[in-house]
Amino acid sequence: MQPRPGVAPFTVRTPRVVAARRLHRRRDREETGRFLAEGPQAVREALRAGLVVELFGTAQALARHPDLSAGAYPVTDEALGVLAETVAPQGLVAVCTAPDVPLESALARQPRLVAVLVEVRDPGNAGTAVDPYNGKCVRASAGSLFHVDLVRTPSVELDPLRGAGLQVLAADPYGDADLDGLADTGELARPTAWLFGSEAHGLPDAVAHAADRRVRVPIHGQAESLNLAAAAAVCLYASARALR
Amino acid sequence: MQPRPGVAPFTVRTPRVVAARRLHRRRDREETGRFLAEGPQAVREALRAGLVVELFGTAQALARHPDLSAGAYPVTDEALGVLAETVAPQGLVAVCTAPDVPLESALARQPRLVAVLVEVRDPGNAGTAVDPYNGKCVRASAGSLFHVDLVRTPSVELDPLRGAGLQVLAADPYGDADLDGLADTGELARPTAWLFGSEAHGLPDAVAHAADRRVRVPIHGQAESLNLAAAAAVCLYASARALR
Repeated sequence: MQPRPGVAPFTVRTPRVVAARRLHRRRDREETGRFLAEGPQAVREALRAGLVVELFGTAQALARHPDLSAGAYPVTDEALGVLAETVAPQGLVAVCTAPDVPLESALARQPRLVAVLVEVRDPGNAGTAVDPYNGKCVRASAGSLFHVDLVRTPSVELDPLRGAGLQVLAADPYGDADLDGLADTGELARPTAWLFGSEAHGLPDAVAHAADRRVRVPIHGQAESLNLAAAAAVCLYASARALR
Repeated sequence: MQPRPGVAPFTVRTPRVVAARRLHRRRDREETGRFLAEGPQAVREALRAGLVVELFGTAQALARHPDLSAGAYPVTDEALGVLAETVAPQGLVAVCTAPDVPLESALARQPRLVAVLVEVRDPGNAGTAVDPYNGKCVRASAGSLFHVDLVRTPSVELDPLRGAGLQVLAADPYGDADLDGLADTGELARPTAWLFGSEAHGLPDAVAHAADRRVRVPIHGQAESLNLAAAAAVCLYASARALR
């Protein structure tokens, strides 16, 4: 398949480029329900998920990725530069539809493992609490944004999670339960919603105490605690292993 | 205990501050074998490890942390600002002796779990391959720099690791062994040296193939791979759990 034939490359002033570029701003993302994904890997995943609204690529990138280039708009290097946030975007940027779903829809699929991020702020860890569609978060998700159900809620409600048959475990460095212990007793083999707090402040006390268990990752050494990303990776891995 | 009495706060021009500030440069760290640690948590760990050469603090910070302030030099806010890299260093910066040890010494302690970082470049993940004492790495280690044996070698040598009774496992997204499988068979319960490659390129082929096993973290979903920090957290957790 070929890029749109006979179209002169779009420049930074072409209206479609001007409009797409605005999606770097959160307000515009929220108003339109759209966001930008860059690079062949993210674009491929977004296409597979049926979420691509418009695709822009340099002539070189479209030639290198013929599988992605159907219907793409060619853009100048300069126009690609203003659409992309990274230094090396590899020539492709897509306007995508934000894929988040209502909590009820996500729970209706009977997930066995859910991660709830409470007031997480570092986009590299999960997206800010309010906008998982900023560029850094989209890149950090490495495509998972396009095939994991993403739900945004104004507050944390545990009843719907429990109603869907999930136990609620709070990741808490000062928790009285220990991840190894829960794995040993088989408790991790139950469908689980994990609650993770912010990097700086952890979970709000009220949220942590509303969970069924407060669970710490055992630290075999003298470190005081793990960072959020490491703790979440370990908790989710341990659950996924127990749920096999 | 009190800060040095009767000393006027050091300024940005005081020779000790000028000398300490140079340690932001890698060349100066390498020439002196010293580096900077900032914030009460890192300073406390460095003091416990006996690695603090000089401690600088604002009057406010020294008053707030009397347990740390013995022998500290008071500095002006401006001087603290040039010594610190973070926006909120909480008033304390220490000049520390780099604690790395020779490989033989580290192995003589018969470690049961060793992480080998091969050409890792992102300081947030482990320190650059060449300088684990840059500020970002010191902060990312969250104190572990001061109580884990740190060894730097110009190349990766597996024989000394095997000689110390360690099996060598390479973390490799395309590995033929699976972390869950090794946990199930009990292989993870053997003393282990894990090899982790760079974020961008993974392990060099020759290094990965020289390991006893190339091990992938099982991915229960559609993601293509984990980032280095998440993969390392999961591998080391799984080993530590098996080695309990």
